[in-house]
Amino acid sequence: MFPQGFHRKLKRGPAVVLPKDLGSVLARAGLQHGDVVLDAGAGSGWAAIAWGLAVAPNGRVHSFERRPEFADLAEGNVRRAGLEGVVKIVRGSAFKGFKGEADFVFLDCGDSNKLVKRAATRMKQGGLLVGYTPHSEQMRAFVNAGLKAGLVLEECVENMERQWLVREQGCRPVNIGLIHTAFLIFMRKPAVAVPAASKAAQPTA
Amino acid sequence: MFPQGFHRKLKRGPAVVLPKDLGSVLARAGLQHGDVVLDAGAGSGWAAIAWGLAVAPNGRVHSFERRPEFADLAEGNVRRAGLEGVVKIVRGSAFKGFKGEADFVFLDCGDSNKLVKRAATRMKQGGLLVGYTPHSEQMRAFVNAGLKAGLVLEECVENMERQWLVREQGCRPVNIGLIHTAFLIFMRKPAVAVPAASKAAQPTA
Amino acid sequence: MFPQGFHRKLKRGPAVVLPKDLGSVLARAGLQHGDVVLDAGAGSGWAAIAWGLAVAPNGRVHSFERRPEFADLAEGNVRRAGLEGVVKIVRGSAFKGFKGEADFVFLDCGDSNKLVKRAATRMKQGGLLVGYTPHSEQMRAFVNAGLKAGLVLEECVENMERQWLVREQGCRPVNIGLIHTAFLIFMRKPAVAVPAASKAAQPTA
Amino acid sequence: MFPQGFHRKLKRGPAVVLPKDLGSVLARAGLQHGDVVLDAGAGSGWAAIAWGLAVAPNGRVHSFERRPEFADLAEGNVRRAGLEGVVKIVRGSAFKGFKGEADFVFLDCGDSNKLVKRAATRMKQGGLLVGYTPHSEQMRAFVNAGLKAGLVLEECVENMERQWLVREQGCRPVNIGLIHTAFLIFMRKPAVAVPAASKAAQPTA
Repeated sequence: MFPQGFHRKLKRGPAVVLPKDLGSVLARAGLQHGDVVLDAGAGSGWAAIAWGLAVAPNGRVHSFERRPEFADLAEGNVRRAGLEGVVKIVRGSAFKGFKGEADFVFLDCGDSNKLVKRAATRMKQGGLLVGYTPHSEQMRAFVNAGLKAGLVLEECVENMERQWLVREQGCRPVNIGLIHTAFLIFMRKPAVAVPAASKAAQPTA
Repeated sequence: MFPQGFHRKLKRGPAVVLPKDLGSVLARAGLQHGDVVLDAGAGSGWAAIAWGLAVAPNGRVHSFERRPEFADLAEGNVRRAGLEGVVKIVRGSAFKGFKGEADFVFLDCGDSNKLVKRAATRMKQGGLLVGYTPHSEQMRAFVNAGLKAGLVLEECVENMERQWLVREQGCRPVNIGLIHTAFLIFMRKPAVAVPAASKAAQPTA
Repeated sequence: MFPQGFHRKLKRGPAVVLPKDLGSVLARAGLQHGDVVLDAGAGSGWAAIAWGLAVAPNGRVHSFERRPEFADLAEGNVRRAGLEGVVKIVRGSAFKGFKGEADFVFLDCGDSNKLVKRAATRMKQGGLLVGYTPHSEQMRAFVNAGLKAGLVLEECVENMERQWLVREQGCRPVNIGLIHTAFLIFMRKPAVAVPAASKAAQPTA
Repeated sequence: MFPQGFHRKLKRGPAVVLPKDLGSVLARAGLQHGDVVLDAGAGSGWAAIAWGLAVAPNGRVHSFERRPEFADLAEGNVRRAGLEGVVKIVRGSAFKGFKGEADFVFLDCGDSNKLVKRAATRMKQGGLLVGYTPHSEQMRAFVNAGLKAGLVLEECVENMERQWLVREQGCRPVNIGLIHTAFLIFMRKPAVAVPAASKAAQPTA
């Protein structure tokens, strides 16, 4: 379990994926020991650490990062979390050098939708692809890319978390806080291939 | 990882703790293989399964349930999740027969606040107690019971999750949905005992 | 003031604009007696009634509706609200037969963005245009149409309202409720014309 | 109608009631010209101005303020809004010197629940009382005071408003914003008196 104040010991470079969003993915995906995970980009490594904890001790997380300074940062955080044996930060573009099939793929890049097709080919049947996109247009592009690649849309969600003050004078939410991070897209690679022409969502043009 | 449609295979009796709340706990707690968890009441067993996945293969979840029909239901769901070796449904009141110290305790009962003191004595130093309470008054009673028992309040949060439709005609949240389940309270047993008289929250009278 | 249960006396045909959204507009717009309002489409007339109350007794609301059965419905509701002298339901497309300049224009149509240019020409300098669009793509198209027509974007907002139960057993939000209606777009016609080439938002292609 | 940037011209002393909450009240109450309003405390006068606009030209708002420096501030803001003939800032405690019966009463004080009984006696049958309380315990105390005074609970709501960015790179909510102001309580004075012993909400002890 995380020790008290664990997240404060991690370093932050590029924007991190926060517990509210990591949790939403963890609880839906049901990752467990032995699972194989692909993650791109690593950024500060917070997401890779969350997946690493869930698949330890015998699973593997391959987290790809093109920018060397982020890769260094992520590697340091993985070490702080004691997950060097489970999470590997790979320097380079996704999914360079990965030959197997993943149970779970997480994409948080500026152009995640362009990686969807490649991700689909690296997933097991029944595998889960999750996209993390700040803008609604990116969510749509991601969904459309997934449908084209033969994936099935399970859900798109956004998580709003409010912290509450519980004090002598009473209970109330804090006044100011985070109101948006990103939309989460959950797409499944079917056990048996489905035709790509699902009508759930189509490119606008 | 959960197979496609996993949650639909589980049975539901008493109200289940949903992924949005389980995830919020998982991402904050950082449970991992080998951790020891106490859980009460088991209800339909969804929470126990989430903790079980996170602490497998060598951790243990002791999930207590007073009502035999719920215990049966929870046990069936644990089996469906393949976690019989990790999650034990204990028939009886919390924390009957448990002799060790837990890393993590989760309380979701009508009177969770009455179990806080007992939970605190069964936790490791640095351990985490999480309460799940539908009403704000229960949240307050829980916090106050925890402070009295020498725990430190980390956070109280509520999670609002919205599902989005991504379709040919455009993107929008669904119109009707779940807008409340419960408040989550995170309290830590300090590594070194702190005096109980913290002023962060006090009984009103 | 509305008598008790007023809204239950109104008839509902097409989806109505709800108090949470009408209020958001009223409080920002600051409509008052004497103001001239354009509204399209009338639908069930709930929005027209809200504007009518605010601009009575000496203001005017011209509410346009192409479908005769909706116009009948809206007219009945306006009568129930006692606002026949203030709100006129006009049968036909927006803004047929209106020669003056409006203080405030409200657009809630399937293709509101196509009416933006026409609306801009019928507004006073300093006037306010508000769009009500369920999908994010419609919001974007509306904003872009407004910028092209020389309007200035003030805000885009969405309103989430939660009802709370306050009972003997405690306080909590209701479990299930409305989580989305529409996005509201507020655009201003500047007192002195600004060049249309603002870069705040541009068409995607 | 408010001119562009109107709220920026108003002065702010004590925390103001924001458009999202004023709007929620306006749209539900349906205030109109001729209505009589009681308001306490005036604070910066933003709420009194909202009611004033709605009841002008022939209605009246009596807004009570015990602290002279706030009364000065509120009076200045009322003047800036051009509502001197409609809104009167009364220096003193609620509802000093008011002899008539009000259509609508708005209470935003630290101890609003203590004014509920007095408010109920100064309301017309069918009149509406609205409380604005930051903490859940205050909401509960307010509801209980209202029931004791023979009022009927219509609704308790909270309003969450999110602002969206609509830009070339896409649409998304702003990242950080206001997540709580207060709970709004709507209670009605019945046209025919109801017995006070409603069981909808009762003190816990």
